[in-house]
Amino acid sequence: MNGAHALMTTLADAGVEVCFTNPGTSEMHFVAALDAEPRMRAVLTLFEGVASGAADGYARMAGKPAATLLHLGCGLGNALANLHNARKARSPVLNIVGDHAAYHVKYDAQLQSDIETVARNVSTFVRTSASTATLCQDAAQALTAAIGPPGEVATLILPADVSWSEGGEPAAPPPALAAPEAGDAAIDAVARVLAGEGRTAMLLGGRALRGAALTAAARIAARCGARLLAEVFPARMERGAGLPAIERLAYLAELAGVQLNGLTDLVLVDAKAPVSFFAYPGKRSELLPEGCRVHTLAGFDQDVAASLERLVERLGARDAKPEPQAPARPARPRGKLTAEKACKAIGALLPANAIVVDEAQTAGATLPAFTRGAPRHDLLTLTGGAIGMGLPVAVGAAIACPDRPVIALCGDGSAMYTIQALWTMARERLDVTSVVFNNSAYAILGVELQRVGAEGAGARARAQLDLGRPNLDFVRIGEGMGVPSTRATTAREFTAAFERALATPGPHLIEAVVPNTLSGLRLRLLRRVLNALPSLPQSMAAAVKRRIAP
Amino acid sequence: MNGAHALMTTLADAGVEVCFTNPGTSEMHFVAALDAEPRMRAVLTLFEGVASGAADGYARMAGKPAATLLHLGCGLGNALANLHNARKARSPVLNIVGDHAAYHVKYDAQLQSDIETVARNVSTFVRTSASTATLCQDAAQALTAAIGPPGEVATLILPADVSWSEGGEPAAPPPALAAPEAGDAAIDAVARVLAGEGRTAMLLGGRALRGAALTAAARIAARCGARLLAEVFPARMERGAGLPAIERLAYLAELAGVQLNGLTDLVLVDAKAPVSFFAYPGKRSELLPEGCRVHTLAGFDQDVAASLERLVERLGARDAKPEPQAPARPARPRGKLTAEKACKAIGALLPANAIVVDEAQTAGATLPAFTRGAPRHDLLTLTGGAIGMGLPVAVGAAIACPDRPVIALCGDGSAMYTIQALWTMARERLDVTSVVFNNSAYAILGVELQRVGAEGAGARARAQLDLGRPNLDFVRIGEGMGVPSTRATTAREFTAAFERALATPGPHLIEAVVPNTLSGLRLRLLRRVLNALPSLPQSMAAAVKRRIAP
Repeated sequence: MNGAHALMTTLADAGVEVCFTNPGTSEMHFVAALDAEPRMRAVLTLFEGVASGAADGYARMAGKPAATLLHLGCGLGNALANLHNARKARSPVLNIVGDHAAYHVKYDAQLQSDIETVARNVSTFVRTSASTATLCQDAAQALTAAIGPPGEVATLILPADVSWSEGGEPAAPPPALAAPEAGDAAIDAVARVLAGEGRTAMLLGGRALRGAALTAAARIAARCGARLLAEVFPARMERGAGLPAIERLAYLAELAGVQLNGLTDLVLVDAKAPVSFFAYPGKRSELLPEGCRVHTLAGFDQDVAASLERLVERLGARDAKPEPQAPARPARPRGKLTAEKACKAIGALLPANAIVVDEAQTAGATLPAFTRGAPRHDLLTLTGGAIGMGLPVAVGAAIACPDRPVIALCGDGSAMYTIQALWTMARERLDVTSVVFNNSAYAILGVELQRVGAEGAGARARAQLDLGRPNLDFVRIGEGMGVPSTRATTAREFTAAFERALATPGPHLIEAVVPNTLSGLRLRLLRRVLNALPSLPQSMAAAVKRRIAP
Repeated sequence: MNGAHALMTTLADAGVEVCFTNPGTSEMHFVAALDAEPRMRAVLTLFEGVASGAADGYARMAGKPAATLLHLGCGLGNALANLHNARKARSPVLNIVGDHAAYHVKYDAQLQSDIETVARNVSTFVRTSASTATLCQDAAQALTAAIGPPGEVATLILPADVSWSEGGEPAAPPPALAAPEAGDAAIDAVARVLAGEGRTAMLLGGRALRGAALTAAARIAARCGARLLAEVFPARMERGAGLPAIERLAYLAELAGVQLNGLTDLVLVDAKAPVSFFAYPGKRSELLPEGCRVHTLAGFDQDVAASLERLVERLGARDAKPEPQAPARPARPRGKLTAEKACKAIGALLPANAIVVDEAQTAGATLPAFTRGAPRHDLLTLTGGAIGMGLPVAVGAAIACPDRPVIALCGDGSAMYTIQALWTMARERLDVTSVVFNNSAYAILGVELQRVGAEGAGARARAQLDLGRPNLDFVRIGEGMGVPSTRATTAREFTAAFERALATPGPHLIEAVVPNTLSGLRLRLLRRVLNALPSLPQSMAAAVKRRIAP
């Protein structure tokens, strides 16, 4: 058995069922080995960033790793941005990166580069397999690292001769490792804080935002009168009618500051103390009020749900009745389309059990409010801030959950980083409805240009945020990649297109043509309002915050 | 003056006129500084791989660096593949990579990653600027490294606070450094080889393939009866009627072996001893016949043209008359379109002074033969093997040479890696005609699957090379990004579309729908022929080689 065959067997034996691929010559033996392993589904992508984003989305929903198949250092480079998001999401991912045969490296042929250096940027486990005999042991160790807990990106570099030589020996699946629960000391300390007199919030992130853990946290909060907060960019958050309501931290640090104002204690559950996404001149990076104490119940390497259950017991909160989110739908919107109306229509129509991937920066701002009382759904967000995750993550989520409708929301700017994902949606007939908000701008950068206080935003600077010259036509682009596509310029058109897309299996794209409301005067006004927030009384700041980010 | 303004002034003073951008929040002050520096042209791209490929194409044609503006480690990651090609092309490129403010790094915010690690993969110079006061000195040193000689990729990491703080001091332009000529010993040694009895060839690469150097080399070859060879993937090669004819090494190692067969001595001029692009089971990586001696006239860090002139003098070859390539055009093709006929039409119509960017792997195989006698033109090729350079390099070449027509040739597979380049072509109204050969396949991988001897290419393996499910529609994709686009399925349609595109300013895309002739039986036959080549008598092997790669 050659190395590639043995590796394929090892992966399939370990339960790896999907490989997102963009192969080249050095991966041809691995590709050939697909024929002998029906348990492995190979999903071809046209760009490596689609493969890595899909592996991230798959892991977030399946809770286990997919493999990627990448072509040397350059293929890995193309995959890097979405591997960064996967790393920040703590998604288990196994990269298989083909390399030159070991004896060919010294010739410094055209594609020769230092793969390990690039891999280290995102991977805790990096190994170049040294021989066919040890390849599958390497793969098992890479899988062990990837699966964790916590989930990690592991990169196995596969020299072509290791792949093609005989002598491969499939390895046993890695052992399942249990994450430890929080210890008594942590439980006691957090219980004391929650039972105390302080103004306390629990900040949930990572796996604490899934059903059971979230419900346990809500019981505790109800029992102790604590607030529940969610991290700003969760990898996967279960929400909707019947689940406990939870307030998510705002992306804009100024608004998050209002949310956190007055807290004396913050309990972290698989979350980090909140910091500003970027630094801004003259502003603090920490978002917590001065003097706020930070306590940790359980971190990313612990069993978060079990730790919360222990805390429920400790606080006698088993019978606490947190208020569930009541079912609620916004009315269908009317008139000329705006981003807010599109979000409203999504809230009005969101089907049960949907997976919502949100990478619509400014245009998606009102989505959380409009979908709060929608049927229960999962929300996947931009964990690492590397734009271009929306469409690829939707690919992976749809492959992990073929029976669930997937809705991907992108801006015109963000969609274009990895637009090639549409082709894989068409090829695999994935039930993904992609909504591209086309406001002809990097609108978020208009906000940021104001926030960083970059003076002199004249015509040449503003041109760098302008995507309207020429306008992107996402209907043609989508159709060019085999995805049925529609343009909506009124609320009624959008609602009809969205309803139709949900009712018809397979991929669809809706281009929502919306105005860029965040321009000129409004932006300058926004900056003033944001800068004024810290000096306002708290109740007034909170009221302003609700107006800006409902 | 803040850091960003001072940096912009330093770049412009040093003659950097173009910056290919895809900015984010941490780069907003640099963007704002554009308003005050009219000497800097900022060219927005929708994906960082377009920016880096454009910087490569610009450098190849302008002979000086452009800057890129990239957003933290993830933006650099997206740029990496084309920076790899730039590195292999020895193109001078200056990356400016924005980073978090230094004091923000410790919070490990969402976009935090180790930028320097990624940068090192492609850059000889990597520096995170430590203060606004020293920023411009850092930039000048980065430019010095980028400009060389040899040209290099230099990466300057610009923390947001270094950019926005006051106290920037523009630095003086870097000094122009002259590359040394080949020394007497090298000249003497090479002269003795060329004057000797061996069967000698000169292998020209890098800058040795430009007009004056090429002509000097041809004089030497004519005087000494040596053969002239060009490296397989030149960064920039001047060719066409009136220039010396030169045989380019084949990509397929088996064919290159035939070209090199019988040589006793090879003289390298800004080239490396030829090696196989990939390794193949049971085949040597070196392509030179056993015992062939290798000599170096001048390397990449030397003045190649001056060294060749010295050798001309030394050998008394000033009056040698190398046979110039005679003007010749193929006839216009007829009938159903094939890749060969499209290449023929390009040969029939190629305008004077064109820049041809060739990333059409299998489909472009006959292009060199059909354009040999076309009017003088530049050919830019895939130096580093990282697919996705074709359209971006064309963007950069067109910006460097606004008065020259640019023709970009891609496959359907290769075009899709960086398809976003089309939008920048439309936005900047670049005179680029993009020809996308759509054969619904990664056809080159069909060849490679055979060459690596990967047995069992069954349906599941072959599906990984199939781009026909669904077919990509490049007319819609091109139009979706604002580029007038046409589909050609007959030779006449292609010829008419190509003629029209050349006659009309601005960007055009022609989708050439061609059969994938390299499938099934033909591929197996090709493999047999390639494997048989070494055992054939040399004249017969050469005849076969001419049939396969004219």
